[in-house]
Amino acid sequence: MKQIDDGQIKKDDQHYVLHAWAKQKNIHSKMIKKGEGVFFWDESGKKYYDMCSQLVYLNVGHNHPKLMEEFRHIGEIPLAAPGFATASKAELARKIIEVAPKNMAKVFFANGGADSNDHAVKIARMATGRYKIFSRYRSYHGATFGAGNLSGESRRFVVEPGIPGFIKFDTPYLYRESIDFESEEAATAFYLDRLNNQILYEGPDSIAAIFMEPIPGSNGVLVPPKGYLEGVRKLCDKYGILMICDEVMSGFGRTGKMFAVDHFDFEPDIMTFAKGVTCGYSPLGGVIVSEKVAQYFDDHVLMTGLTYSGHTVSAQIGCATLDIYKEEHLIDHAAAMGEVLAERLEKLYRFASVGDVRHIGLFAAVELVKDKATKEPLIAYGLDYGKDTVGLMSRFVGLLSENGFYTYSHESSVMIAPPLIITERQINEAMDIFENVLAQFEKNDLFADQTVISK
Amino acid sequence: MKQIDDGQIKKDDQHYVLHAWAKQKNIHSKMIKKGEGVFFWDESGKKYYDMCSQLVYLNVGHNHPKLMEEFRHIGEIPLAAPGFATASKAELARKIIEVAPKNMAKVFFANGGADSNDHAVKIARMATGRYKIFSRYRSYHGATFGAGNLSGESRRFVVEPGIPGFIKFDTPYLYRESIDFESEEAATAFYLDRLNNQILYEGPDSIAAIFMEPIPGSNGVLVPPKGYLEGVRKLCDKYGILMICDEVMSGFGRTGKMFAVDHFDFEPDIMTFAKGVTCGYSPLGGVIVSEKVAQYFDDHVLMTGLTYSGHTVSAQIGCATLDIYKEEHLIDHAAAMGEVLAERLEKLYRFASVGDVRHIGLFAAVELVKDKATKEPLIAYGLDYGKDTVGLMSRFVGLLSENGFYTYSHESSVMIAPPLIITERQINEAMDIFENVLAQFEKNDLFADQTVISK
Repeated sequence: MKQIDDGQIKKDDQHYVLHAWAKQKNIHSKMIKKGEGVFFWDESGKKYYDMCSQLVYLNVGHNHPKLMEEFRHIGEIPLAAPGFATASKAELARKIIEVAPKNMAKVFFANGGADSNDHAVKIARMATGRYKIFSRYRSYHGATFGAGNLSGESRRFVVEPGIPGFIKFDTPYLYRESIDFESEEAATAFYLDRLNNQILYEGPDSIAAIFMEPIPGSNGVLVPPKGYLEGVRKLCDKYGILMICDEVMSGFGRTGKMFAVDHFDFEPDIMTFAKGVTCGYSPLGGVIVSEKVAQYFDDHVLMTGLTYSGHTVSAQIGCATLDIYKEEHLIDHAAAMGEVLAERLEKLYRFASVGDVRHIGLFAAVELVKDKATKEPLIAYGLDYGKDTVGLMSRFVGLLSENGFYTYSHESSVMIAPPLIITERQINEAMDIFENVLAQFEKNDLFADQTVISK
Repeated sequence: MKQIDDGQIKKDDQHYVLHAWAKQKNIHSKMIKKGEGVFFWDESGKKYYDMCSQLVYLNVGHNHPKLMEEFRHIGEIPLAAPGFATASKAELARKIIEVAPKNMAKVFFANGGADSNDHAVKIARMATGRYKIFSRYRSYHGATFGAGNLSGESRRFVVEPGIPGFIKFDTPYLYRESIDFESEEAATAFYLDRLNNQILYEGPDSIAAIFMEPIPGSNGVLVPPKGYLEGVRKLCDKYGILMICDEVMSGFGRTGKMFAVDHFDFEPDIMTFAKGVTCGYSPLGGVIVSEKVAQYFDDHVLMTGLTYSGHTVSAQIGCATLDIYKEEHLIDHAAAMGEVLAERLEKLYRFASVGDVRHIGLFAAVELVKDKATKEPLIAYGLDYGKDTVGLMSRFVGLLSENGFYTYSHESSVMIAPPLIITERQINEAMDIFENVLAQFEKNDLFADQTVISK
């Protein structure tokens, strides 16, 4: 591409691009002029810690030399439609099955997280002959119609009236539960009992799948209480329901293990993935199915598909990405760095505005409150999308960014999910910024000025 | 990637990949070992005319040197999430608006055709505040839940029970209409009157959009009768309904003009695209909206999005692809070659099994029948997906392939949609093969052996 002046790029961006999740009038997008590891630089030369790996996908960091090199080899495998076997697609499917839970057998490839979730729902319906799909409040699965209907937050409302048979139940969210449980096990028993009842009320024989992020990401890294996921698995077994885990955000090392489910003692029937499989260097997502689910399609036509199922280039980038995880021992490194981050996060409780911190590996959220005793959230539920006011949260995230700590928020939670290559020193430097901003925010904004600003 | 032996690739493909639209038991995928222009070669060294541009996306042909070269420049524009302005995204959006109908103003980027259609429906619902969506029987829009519900053929059934408010009406299909119209205009009047009634019956004020492929592709290149699309536009204007044209297959020169709508005298409110924007070299799709639709989102949050909206790499490949169309005058060339193809196609009527041929530019379908007088189709409606028998059609397409003419079929129509770079001589060579196979098929299969074979 020919060189274009930054001013023209930003002008064209504002003039010609319809931007996601935003009013278009006041789009003033920044640019990334350079990216390197955990850092990027904007057009003014300002340097940022990328503490959310863009949208929690850049696990290997910016401008990874091995992936840049892989683009030099594009073309060595000829482009082919899904009906052909290709070296990259076959190899990537094998590599994914090798690192997936033991019961997993085959991979269906799609383009991203959302469409992968749509295809997973269809696969579950075909394999079971049932149509109802359970998913959870405070979840996010994407913005296509299937994924949108799975989602349990306000970004779902634009795909309503909803798809018949999509049913919601509660995500364990102990920080905001009205009951003060004496133990995690007690909380688990409470949530599982409610889920069991709801399954009975909806009719177990009509339920194809229970669809869940094992650890909801966008909605604030809600790590489940002990035994919860295993309990859901048991309910699924009891009623012949498939358990589908959305690992789009949590997969490929984010939590300090290859998949989030690897932290627990169960195996899902179906898993969906995207982001980390290519670290966003090329669009790719997919659905992993167990041997049992796969077998159903030996003799039944898989009634789903897409033009780029197993895209030759994306799969080639995926193979190189999976090699990086292995060669650089990134999963173990993420686990070790997760401990460093955890130590810093746990210390945040001393701040008046920190209500809860939740973390597993390099997947963390800090939930801010106006008042620690009442737990009043910084912004009321549902106010961060589609409304005129975002107020204090966007001001806090803006302050972080001004100070070189780049991330985003959802509801009253700030996402902290840096590239897995981050070092101990970098974590400490970034968290120093976080603490300084928090102190400054509490002093100047939180208690001084409660007016809301327009998005 | 390291070199892997063909046998191993095919074994891994069969073992680890879940294949679209197929039973998995007997997957024996071919490989493409080399692609060049309109040709590709399989693992046995056999050469094929790619007469469907893989899945009607490889408009610039296999292994285009300019696109191969562009991959060498990946990394010059740093990867960035949708919130950032990037050189490739801004430039591609501008280039698309420059070649789109005059009323078009902004581009929302997605990954492929299906999810683009999902986002387009959401955009129309937001912009109008209405929820019903009209789309047509004998259409295909993709396999996500939104796109699947839009689709008017059997691949829709797996996403049922359907989304409330998705309503179907008839595509003009004059060859199989029970009325023998005295003119195209008479047919148009008939179909528009029926559509007008259906709009009234459904309640115009509840209808957000009429969604259509201006020329349905997969369902057999159903070129509309004169004045039909303009008439739909008038109905949309009358009732305040948005007109959405799915140009995923027909866009970017396929029909001999940049977009299929350019053949007619109207402008849609929204268009969706994918395939030809990158010719499949990198996954990309999107939604183009008119100035009027764009303006709505100046002050209202666009409640949709995805991780790879305007993916840096895909947009870069898109920019290079649009340059090729211009530099190689591919649209004009496609129009000229369309005339060459048309001449050959019109001569096919002399075959007993050719019921109808339909074509516009390099976008054509040949519909086969068992009996020209009764128009009995080669396979009954709905039998080509999800059933055990495909019989004669798959045998015919198999014969074509054996003879070096690669394409696919849907219902009883064979798709002919070669790369736009095809030459007159290549068209004639390929169509010679087609005619020879047709003669052979009529002699050996059509009238000799009517047993069905298992898919």
